[in-house]
Amino acid sequence: MRIVVLSGGVGGARMARGFAGLADAELTVLVNVGDDADNHGLRISPDLDTVVYTLAGVEGPHGWGRASDTFSLNEELARFGMDNTFQLGDRDLALKLFRTHAMANGSKLSEVTALVAESFGIGAEILPVTDDRLRTMIEIADGWVTFQDYFVARRFEDEVLAVSYEGADTARPVPGALAAIGQADLVVIAPSNPPLSVWPMTAIHEIREALAHHPKVTAVSPLIGGATVKGPADRVMASLGLPKGNVGVAEAYAGLIDRLVIDVTDGDDASSIDDIEVMATDILIKEPDAAVRLARELIGQ
Amino acid sequence: MRIVVLSGGVGGARMARGFAGLADAELTVLVNVGDDADNHGLRISPDLDTVVYTLAGVEGPHGWGRASDTFSLNEELARFGMDNTFQLGDRDLALKLFRTHAMANGSKLSEVTALVAESFGIGAEILPVTDDRLRTMIEIADGWVTFQDYFVARRFEDEVLAVSYEGADTARPVPGALAAIGQADLVVIAPSNPPLSVWPMTAIHEIREALAHHPKVTAVSPLIGGATVKGPADRVMASLGLPKGNVGVAEAYAGLIDRLVIDVTDGDDASSIDDIEVMATDILIKEPDAAVRLARELIGQ
Repeated sequence: MRIVVLSGGVGGARMARGFAGLADAELTVLVNVGDDADNHGLRISPDLDTVVYTLAGVEGPHGWGRASDTFSLNEELARFGMDNTFQLGDRDLALKLFRTHAMANGSKLSEVTALVAESFGIGAEILPVTDDRLRTMIEIADGWVTFQDYFVARRFEDEVLAVSYEGADTARPVPGALAAIGQADLVVIAPSNPPLSVWPMTAIHEIREALAHHPKVTAVSPLIGGATVKGPADRVMASLGLPKGNVGVAEAYAGLIDRLVIDVTDGDDASSIDDIEVMATDILIKEPDAAVRLARELIGQ
Repeated sequence: MRIVVLSGGVGGARMARGFAGLADAELTVLVNVGDDADNHGLRISPDLDTVVYTLAGVEGPHGWGRASDTFSLNEELARFGMDNTFQLGDRDLALKLFRTHAMANGSKLSEVTALVAESFGIGAEILPVTDDRLRTMIEIADGWVTFQDYFVARRFEDEVLAVSYEGADTARPVPGALAAIGQADLVVIAPSNPPLSVWPMTAIHEIREALAHHPKVTAVSPLIGGATVKGPADRVMASLGLPKGNVGVAEAYAGLIDRLVIDVTDGDDASSIDDIEVMATDILIKEPDAAVRLARELIGQ
């Protein structure tokens, strides 16, 4: 069975881990790159690395970086007046250095990602949604800032007034992405932040079209009890004018999805959502076993 | 009293530390950059960093890197198939990353070095001999290799057939270097490897001329009992056709120095050296106190 998961960071990585745990699933994970940044001259791809580390079972405890990492280099940066707010672990930095060096020598992000996934023994195909430059920009009261500035430096405390995806107009899907969607038995939009993690991907015209034409696209809601498990998705959706709760999630993905999977505690939302199938189940997937269980439910096993 | 020390790595750093320990010495250290390299896209300046770390009192135990460093990043590089023979500690890498990033943004090596020295609270002026590209290339039986390839990867086991200094013909001394030499009461060529650490500096025409015209240039021999304390200087000098012992050191610096300081155990060499003054004393300066004592002797205190 062929599965494509569209993933942001933690929520997407956990959903992908669920499908990776199914023996009969051939998994492709399409990953958001709107959060990518250049930090101290190093190419940072937070969502890609979270997916890689999670599928490798070496993910850090707080949704970023690696487990049991040290932070000697990051601490020492302060001596030279460098901003080390963005915590980069020493082992995590080896991946950043490899990526930066390989890309400086002409490798594509997708090529580097394939080598990295292989080096961790990951069976799933992990694809950045595009090899082209795509950056999520966020308008707050102080003006337009990058995703990292909003999310890390400002701890996602500002109200989001608008969002734009620099480069999305001309970005092409990475090789293999459209074929993977076209051949997939099921496409899953993971429980990631719709405006900040999924829209950067669907802002690419060909990705959007491929999803719109696919007969079985399922989104898993990022909300439980009307609030996000992690991150600011609920607040961001509200401030961008989307309805509250799963009605807002359905609207965020209007025209793209055929089914919305909501938490069993939010079952009442189903009656307010038309046109698409709504499935209510336990969607909290912090633990690997729970993710595998949800993955099975999504493919009807 | 104004002192200029021309320095390679460990021997030069130790000599500089001796002068830095004198209350009345105003010290400029001119440092070899022929060993500089780009490793994984990071700018490596081994001799500069050894001088900085030694003057800061945080030098590693083996002549490179920092004391009490960790090597998590370097170990992890192997996962991605990157050559991690050149041991880069995590804290040491923070300096490499700062330098690389600052230079990518247009800073000169000398500017970065000044900031680094300041960040470690070093009172001496540390100058790379040039901001231009200068690379020591070494001919061995397998052909021409870089200094790092010869020294680190091949552990300086090959016979050195010839040496060249790429870029030296057009390299300009760093701003301040010629003035520092011109105003110095004493110029000291540290007990560094003559062909591999000092000649890359004297290969720059203006540096060579400034030394030739200075009335008080003292070289401290890198040999004790006819052999080097550390590194391959004795073998390299022999294979490049220089006479054995301190006669060879005097010949290596012919026309540049006014005095050669040799170890008291090699006192007999003095009778074979003409034209320049020879001073015999204890030149083993592994310990800071010994370096201060030698520094005092060199300025006649």
